[in-house]
Amino acid sequence: MAPKIKDVAKKAGVSVTTVSRVLNGEKYVKDDLKARVQRAIDELGYSPSHIARSLVRKKTNLIGVIVPDVTSSFYSTILSTIEKTASINEYNLMVCNIIEDNDKELKYLQIFKQMRVDGIIIMHEKLNTEIRELIHKLDIPIIFSSVKPVEQKFVSVIIDDYAAAYDATRYLIGLGHSRIGFIGGDMRDVTSGQNRFAGYKQALADCAIEAIGDYIRFGDYKTQSGYEIMKEMLAGDVVPTAVFAVSDDMAVGAMNCIHDDGLRVPDDLSVIGFDGSQLTEQVRPRLSSMEQPILEMGIVTVDALLALISGNEGAPKKDVILKHKLVIRDSCKSYVNSSTEA
Amino acid sequence: MAPKIKDVAKKAGVSVTTVSRVLNGEKYVKDDLKARVQRAIDELGYSPSHIARSLVRKKTNLIGVIVPDVTSSFYSTILSTIEKTASINEYNLMVCNIIEDNDKELKYLQIFKQMRVDGIIIMHEKLNTEIRELIHKLDIPIIFSSVKPVEQKFVSVIIDDYAAAYDATRYLIGLGHSRIGFIGGDMRDVTSGQNRFAGYKQALADCAIEAIGDYIRFGDYKTQSGYEIMKEMLAGDVVPTAVFAVSDDMAVGAMNCIHDDGLRVPDDLSVIGFDGSQLTEQVRPRLSSMEQPILEMGIVTVDALLALISGNEGAPKKDVILKHKLVIRDSCKSYVNSSTEA
Repeated sequence: MAPKIKDVAKKAGVSVTTVSRVLNGEKYVKDDLKARVQRAIDELGYSPSHIARSLVRKKTNLIGVIVPDVTSSFYSTILSTIEKTASINEYNLMVCNIIEDNDKELKYLQIFKQMRVDGIIIMHEKLNTEIRELIHKLDIPIIFSSVKPVEQKFVSVIIDDYAAAYDATRYLIGLGHSRIGFIGGDMRDVTSGQNRFAGYKQALADCAIEAIGDYIRFGDYKTQSGYEIMKEMLAGDVVPTAVFAVSDDMAVGAMNCIHDDGLRVPDDLSVIGFDGSQLTEQVRPRLSSMEQPILEMGIVTVDALLALISGNEGAPKKDVILKHKLVIRDSCKSYVNSSTEA
Repeated sequence: MAPKIKDVAKKAGVSVTTVSRVLNGEKYVKDDLKARVQRAIDELGYSPSHIARSLVRKKTNLIGVIVPDVTSSFYSTILSTIEKTASINEYNLMVCNIIEDNDKELKYLQIFKQMRVDGIIIMHEKLNTEIRELIHKLDIPIIFSSVKPVEQKFVSVIIDDYAAAYDATRYLIGLGHSRIGFIGGDMRDVTSGQNRFAGYKQALADCAIEAIGDYIRFGDYKTQSGYEIMKEMLAGDVVPTAVFAVSDDMAVGAMNCIHDDGLRVPDDLSVIGFDGSQLTEQVRPRLSSMEQPILEMGIVTVDALLALISGNEGAPKKDVILKHKLVIRDSCKSYVNSSTEA
């Protein structure tokens, strides 16, 4: 077992306070005490780097969290888990809900700095230049959760969004669908926009299915945009037989539009979502979804951040990739070609 | 226009800093300066009580928020509005998600105190004795939002839950229903538990409809409990023709149970919810609901708290009662008695 600060104090014959004052480099510590503490540290092989770090830095036990939108079913669920995990570890959250407002985010990051938060969790990737510069300058541990921005310095806790979207599309193809609509995310987002779209396209390509422009549209992850995009698709000449939406909220919007149009899910159209939020179980038919392990993601995010904060050796040095999982509920079924037009 | 601190400074021929030092009661201000400032204050009819308060108290621009469960559609929506309104006013939130954990709440309240938050918003009413004592001792402005606990000292921003539940029940009675199931809240809650139940009972009584024990059950506001309670009701000898649930989440659970049982909403059973959260539009049929003005509630809560913090005369001295509103969507229909058993 690694020696602790109290072992050092005992060996040096001084109080723990004195050891911490020496480690902190405080003035007014007598030279002979300093020497005794240093000798004890050396003899015990005690690594002051860890301790020094947590002692020098006065901890606030605050974590700043930047979340894009707490009304989204995905973010409210992961935020709840992050809060729970932080609380168990005696950490408290300052939450900033930015809704695509970079100025607000910048202001909050400055506040996080002033408040001396011990760490920051960021859950979106639309970082402008000012924010990029600021987070690189801040001397505060940062973890990205559920997203991987084009920033190599920081660790992300994510799933493989490309593979997850690929697998969701292959699932629909496996059910016999070839006219597969895609309701994508924001293409400024690498993780949830570009990577999921790339997965969809690759799955089609691997099965020699042509990607059709009319079937590919992009929304803002919310229910309403899923609804509107589905409306456009249903108004097209040839309607898809299945739709893959890259958020559960958009998938539910699509299902509602199909319902309001007098069609049925999954009899007339199959729909699959993405995220695995609680909304999947709140709608009928229940929504099949490519699930992110939301609870695990929240826990792992906090654990990783706390390890970074404490300078722990277990702190992740590269991205943590969690497993995605297809959860089949009632919104997809096999496509049986009953007409000659297809 | 009321005189400002700079008017006082000008009149006294001193700097604003000196005025604020006098108002703060700082030592090391020369007596003749003190006298000059005091004279200027008197002559201008300047009210130092307001200013003194905001000067003496060093502001942190932090608001502590205690929310029962961010995954609930009602709380995530109101939290989002509170955050937005606070942010516009340059205030930032520390959020505590307590999930019925009084120890955690107590710990957070202590932290709010240590962090010197300028104000606190509490959105639940299950306060134990320790919490009651603590919040009365804290010298921090507190507003209750969406709930009215049995504490007369604090202002609440609420609707009239009794009247809202009464109106929802009368709506169902007006549609011809007399077998009306009630999915209530936690009876330890005065606002959302007891008051809504009382409104339901009174509406029945006013229409000479007997309240039947089998039709009255209590849940925890979440989807799953609405589902389970509906299951019990459907298993009864005489099934209700309409159900009133005191949260949208429970109403959606009830609708799902009815659907899974092979029945249809509203053809076989009418369902009405309570809250007006976004879930009402995310499900099919769309859920009719007795709506709380969630956005207005969030805005008014923050405005009231900021007025209290600044010692503003506009600060509410008693509860702010907002208007509830019945929003009719697709989950209720008229009851037509087609059998002889009723």
